Amino acid sequence: MPKRKICVVITARPSYSRIKTALKAIKNHPELELQLVIAGSALLDRYGNAADFIINDGFEVAAKVYMVLEGENPTTMAKTTGLGLMELTNVFYNLQPDAVISIADRFETIATSIAAAYQNIPLVHIQGGEVTGSIDEKVRHANTKLADLHLVSNEDARERVIKLGEDPEMVINTGCPSIDLAREMEKETSLNFNPMEKYGGVGNEISWNDGYIVVMQHPVTTEYSKSREQIMETLYAVRDSGLPAFWFWPNVDAGSDGTSNGIRTFREKEKPENIHFFKNMDGLDFLRLMKNSKMLIGNSSAGIRECSYLGVPVLNIGNRQQRRLRGENVTDVGYNRFEILNAIKELEGNGRFNKSNLYGDGESGKRIAEILAKVELRSSKTISY
Amino acid sequence: MPKRKICVVITARPSYSRIKTALKAIKNHPELELQLVIAGSALLDRYGNAADFIINDGFEVAAKVYMVLEGENPTTMAKTTGLGLMELTNVFYNLQPDAVISIADRFETIATSIAAAYQNIPLVHIQGGEVTGSIDEKVRHANTKLADLHLVSNEDARERVIKLGEDPEMVINTGCPSIDLAREMEKETSLNFNPMEKYGGVGNEISWNDGYIVVMQHPVTTEYSKSREQIMETLYAVRDSGLPAFWFWPNVDAGSDGTSNGIRTFREKEKPENIHFFKNMDGLDFLRLMKNSKMLIGNSSAGIRECSYLGVPVLNIGNRQQRRLRGENVTDVGYNRFEILNAIKELEGNGRFNKSNLYGDGESGKRIAEILAKVELRSSKTISY
Amino acid sequence: MPKRKICVVITARPSYSRIKTALKAIKNHPELELQLVIAGSALLDRYGNAADFIINDGFEVAAKVYMVLEGENPTTMAKTTGLGLMELTNVFYNLQPDAVISIADRFETIATSIAAAYQNIPLVHIQGGEVTGSIDEKVRHANTKLADLHLVSNEDARERVIKLGEDPEMVINTGCPSIDLAREMEKETSLNFNPMEKYGGVGNEISWNDGYIVVMQHPVTTEYSKSREQIMETLYAVRDSGLPAFWFWPNVDAGSDGTSNGIRTFREKEKPENIHFFKNMDGLDFLRLMKNSKMLIGNSSAGIRECSYLGVPVLNIGNRQQRRLRGENVTDVGYNRFEILNAIKELEGNGRFNKSNLYGDGESGKRIAEILAKVELRSSKTISY
Amino acid sequence: MPKRKICVVITARPSYSRIKTALKAIKNHPELELQLVIAGSALLDRYGNAADFIINDGFEVAAKVYMVLEGENPTTMAKTTGLGLMELTNVFYNLQPDAVISIADRFETIATSIAAAYQNIPLVHIQGGEVTGSIDEKVRHANTKLADLHLVSNEDARERVIKLGEDPEMVINTGCPSIDLAREMEKETSLNFNPMEKYGGVGNEISWNDGYIVVMQHPVTTEYSKSREQIMETLYAVRDSGLPAFWFWPNVDAGSDGTSNGIRTFREKEKPENIHFFKNMDGLDFLRLMKNSKMLIGNSSAGIRECSYLGVPVLNIGNRQQRRLRGENVTDVGYNRFEILNAIKELEGNGRFNKSNLYGDGESGKRIAEILAKVELRSSKTISY
Repeated sequence: MPKRKICVVITARPSYSRIKTALKAIKNHPELELQLVIAGSALLDRYGNAADFIINDGFEVAAKVYMVLEGENPTTMAKTTGLGLMELTNVFYNLQPDAVISIADRFETIATSIAAAYQNIPLVHIQGGEVTGSIDEKVRHANTKLADLHLVSNEDARERVIKLGEDPEMVINTGCPSIDLAREMEKETSLNFNPMEKYGGVGNEISWNDGYIVVMQHPVTTEYSKSREQIMETLYAVRDSGLPAFWFWPNVDAGSDGTSNGIRTFREKEKPENIHFFKNMDGLDFLRLMKNSKMLIGNSSAGIRECSYLGVPVLNIGNRQQRRLRGENVTDVGYNRFEILNAIKELEGNGRFNKSNLYGDGESGKRIAEILAKVELRSSKTISY
Repeated sequence: MPKRKICVVITARPSYSRIKTALKAIKNHPELELQLVIAGSALLDRYGNAADFIINDGFEVAAKVYMVLEGENPTTMAKTTGLGLMELTNVFYNLQPDAVISIADRFETIATSIAAAYQNIPLVHIQGGEVTGSIDEKVRHANTKLADLHLVSNEDARERVIKLGEDPEMVINTGCPSIDLAREMEKETSLNFNPMEKYGGVGNEISWNDGYIVVMQHPVTTEYSKSREQIMETLYAVRDSGLPAFWFWPNVDAGSDGTSNGIRTFREKEKPENIHFFKNMDGLDFLRLMKNSKMLIGNSSAGIRECSYLGVPVLNIGNRQQRRLRGENVTDVGYNRFEILNAIKELEGNGRFNKSNLYGDGESGKRIAEILAKVELRSSKTISY
Repeated sequence: MPKRKICVVITARPSYSRIKTALKAIKNHPELELQLVIAGSALLDRYGNAADFIINDGFEVAAKVYMVLEGENPTTMAKTTGLGLMELTNVFYNLQPDAVISIADRFETIATSIAAAYQNIPLVHIQGGEVTGSIDEKVRHANTKLADLHLVSNEDARERVIKLGEDPEMVINTGCPSIDLAREMEKETSLNFNPMEKYGGVGNEISWNDGYIVVMQHPVTTEYSKSREQIMETLYAVRDSGLPAFWFWPNVDAGSDGTSNGIRTFREKEKPENIHFFKNMDGLDFLRLMKNSKMLIGNSSAGIRECSYLGVPVLNIGNRQQRRLRGENVTDVGYNRFEILNAIKELEGNGRFNKSNLYGDGESGKRIAEILAKVELRSSKTISY
Repeated sequence: MPKRKICVVITARPSYSRIKTALKAIKNHPELELQLVIAGSALLDRYGNAADFIINDGFEVAAKVYMVLEGENPTTMAKTTGLGLMELTNVFYNLQPDAVISIADRFETIATSIAAAYQNIPLVHIQGGEVTGSIDEKVRHANTKLADLHLVSNEDARERVIKLGEDPEMVINTGCPSIDLAREMEKETSLNFNPMEKYGGVGNEISWNDGYIVVMQHPVTTEYSKSREQIMETLYAVRDSGLPAFWFWPNVDAGSDGTSNGIRTFREKEKPENIHFFKNMDGLDFLRLMKNSKMLIGNSSAGIRECSYLGVPVLNIGNRQQRRLRGENVTDVGYNRFEILNAIKELEGNGRFNKSNLYGDGESGKRIAEILAKVELRSSKTISY
């Protein structure tokens, strides 16, 4: 019997962490063949060139697709998606996969979804059913309505996808593969690398042995013009906290220029002594860094997902993760430097939280591969009500 | 106060009939400015060049966009959508509308929806919430999840859109503007033109004064390869019925070549004496033709919508209109010539049905314009559950 | 030593005949690997689906690219080219060829040329240096200015490419591979198949044993709107000649709808008894048909090329082949039915012409492969004056 | 009589300087109407957002087109061009100009040329016929072969375009409009603004009253990977010269990341005290800055053009301007810090050169407008030999 060809499209660095253990499990499954497509910002140096990490991890690449338009504004986001749709259609047409996996809710993922759905290729959507602010909210649920099989990250999401009119048999809570990675490093008891030595970055050499914090704050697309002032609040609060901080640049999105710009200006002007900046980091090392930190600050989904499993305190700023299911490790604050600073102090006192399985038990990758091998694949559906 | 700029994108001949009275009402509304974009098959001669009719009706065109790839298969459908997305993004960027209207569920309408949603332009979706078979089903509900305001055609649709997690205040049953046109001709008591004289067409000169039937059957995209054999069943049944028949070629879609091919082959081989074929017809004349016919046969949505208001008997073949709300005037049959032939005979005996307001009362266009002028427009939302 | 990867892009049925023997020679050359890309109208049924013939001939296809926009007008020609450029860029990026071959002068070939040149892949242009009317003229010389190696069909072309400022060492007269095919059938003394039996077609069953003519007339793009009336002149002349005629539909181009339309209308109205129409034919069979005909009529380049080698009389209509180097077998006339009819009669009396090597000696394919294996490939150049 | 609509497409900051006075003259000409399209990097902040300057100068914009793909490598250059071709085709189709102007030889200008030529719109090419290294060389001459009217910058170029087979009547030496701007400031005797005050920039506050130099060095696309090491040589040489230097970041091109990267690294590591860096500057101010400088260093075409008129010494590095016609003000050196440093010292001793009219007399803009109003516009041509 020929293997089922499963085509996965990765369009950004963070998506890779969300799917990596599933990729491995698909690659190793005797009844599956992995067709990996790398596209969008995952090919770009400015956004951490995930392609290099992926190839380094031993995956073969079936096709690469440049598709990101410069401009980082709503207009280029839409055009990028159109370009991606045209090119991914061609890629699928030539690869002839048995199923296509579209990941989560980045704006360009709808290109993957349409390219598969319109070509009658069964579409699997990973991590649907969650709720957030911003354009991701529209994209995620539109992906759900285009997809035939839904592999979600938690019970809450599973119920929501079913409410959206999907056949309950095709909605399965597999947990999130990103938790698998977190689980792998549970045995590690301290940070086993020097971040500045291994990844360079810019800014002061900071002393991190007695504890440090990690910051990652992305622009929120529907608040495009405000991203600069928003990041400023966080920058001042973290500077004023005096805590050693490892800070990550945002990934590609309308407004990231505002965020990047804010960081750049702040650095030139304020020369913060307690902050060191990184462009990007291998996903596992980033996890290690978080796991061993005092807390994560910003609006990264890693705070909601991996950190809940790891019990790391999270200071979640603004509404990017608004209404996403969260564990007790998450404290929410607004875009205000004083509010942020106070919350940092409070959280620092709290210490670590209990581990939670809210987003998975660490076996999601294998579970996903197994489902892909066994499920009856179809490419047509009708709403359940 | 500046007028609200309402951008409407028409991508196909049938979409024009579904929106025409709303276009007029927008154009004439003191607080609204109409920005009309004609794209896709609406520009192509092979599909009845709706552009000519539109311009003839006195509308000004803000932009035209060629975007249909040749091939009429699932791959070119997806590419067409990607191309449309890129180009419509550019058109909206340059026109700067206050709201964009995306119509119903043709595959390329998702390009309109994404181009607006990603650029934070409030998106109005017309005729969502219905249920059908085929790819339209996925497209329609994805459009709903991208849209901010939903103007639906019936109560059933209104309830379904709300179930999909939309804010009830933003879901309004306006009825379908196509019914407005049907209402306009209620006073006409007989067909006021000779179809063959006015529109030419090919095939025998048929005698229609004592009653005739109308046939319009489109390919169903998820059954792409079967469109040829499906049309054959209808052709034989209509031929064998002996009833004078006016038959319309299908519009652009994956598989229409199968349908067209079937019709062409049948004509060459069988030379049916009772059928006359048309490429297309002005929307109002088509309505008149239906209104005065013995019955409509095929799978056109006009059978479900306009004919329910007009009380015209409809023989609906196959699952293209599956699960769409229907009046008592509709009889469903499968793709089988004998079944079809029997149903024709039965329906012919039945005569006319009572008029129904299921899809509107004939005032939808004005109602839509009024809402567009008054509603608070927004471009961001969160699911209601 | 790794084989040189030679990527050839075929975008239309006629291009395949022009390169077929070179493809074979590349495929069989021990130092070369063929990467065959099929794109544009070569994938479309309406234009004779060259892909089927190519695969049938035993070639493997590295990638297929749908890229033709519907409309067949100047606007869609330009868009088709842009779309092709984007997609072919991606194909070359993923295939990583050592050289790309762009064929002749169809409008979309410039997409192949730019995609290679901009990516610093050595570009080989086949059949440059000729002179014609219409947009092809601009495209051909622009291709020359983008290309690094020029493999031309005749001495006249070689001199012209050198005059255009190209390095004489990189301009080689290989002859035209289409002549190789003509040579292969020199030994055949009569038509070895019944065209209507083998290829169907439409129109009367005509009697061809006592001699017949072949007609193939394409629209001329810069005279877009005139293509309908131009074809009418030829149709009347051929009908009035009374000679049994095999007539071929035009290939995709702005205006082909005009041509096709003209043919269709003429058939319905005049029902010509002496003409049988074909959509397309295997290249070799078409050659056989020409070789055994009384004459070729129209504006096909086969009249200029293959027919000069075969000595078949050619009646060349209009300026599509204007200024292309021609043998004594070619008689030129304008778009006028009386002129055409007179010329048919005159040529019919003349009989066959002497064979000429103007466009090659029948060994071009091998010669091209040999050059591709040995030449020093480069992707940068400077004008010679 | 309706005005002739002249559509000009500006895709980059430097192109604007090359056409500005012609734009003004077209705008003010009673028989002409200007349709200005801004596209490509001219819309992007990272490349100096020429759009802002253009709008500030009082021009109305008919359409804007985002089209630059991220990646700054040969693959994205080609895709950018394909995307531009599709979009500009649509823009021209909707604007219906009587002629389109394509400027010089940037890679994306061929999109403008094809979009016009294929739609049978008369194409005017500005600044053809010159000779350089890199991909520009192929693009420029391909533009020439697509264009119908050639307005060149010098006699040498005029002769070369004619040699390329163009009709001599359609090749006119108008001079370069960039010289018009140089002429306007001949009366100014010293720098009338403080560059650092007016434009910010980064790096040391340098003392420039006693003379300074200007540096602008772009990556050379066919030497993509080398751009980083090339810029390093210049950076060390300029640092070691000790002369106060105003340095400009490169514009968008494959490899500019290499150049930018080199500059960034050098700044962090070497903290050069005598160099101040600018992202961009209004064109006139840049001219003023050059005019009053001791010399221009790098590979900007301004050194070849404007500086020859102004008599400013130029140190031209590498082969980007290879074989472009140059005045006695230009000294050529290779990518070698010692060679560069020596040449700087030598040139500093020399002082100013005599003014030359090699690239125009300062009346080009008006001359171009006049020609556009009077010339017989056509969109078809045949090579002259």
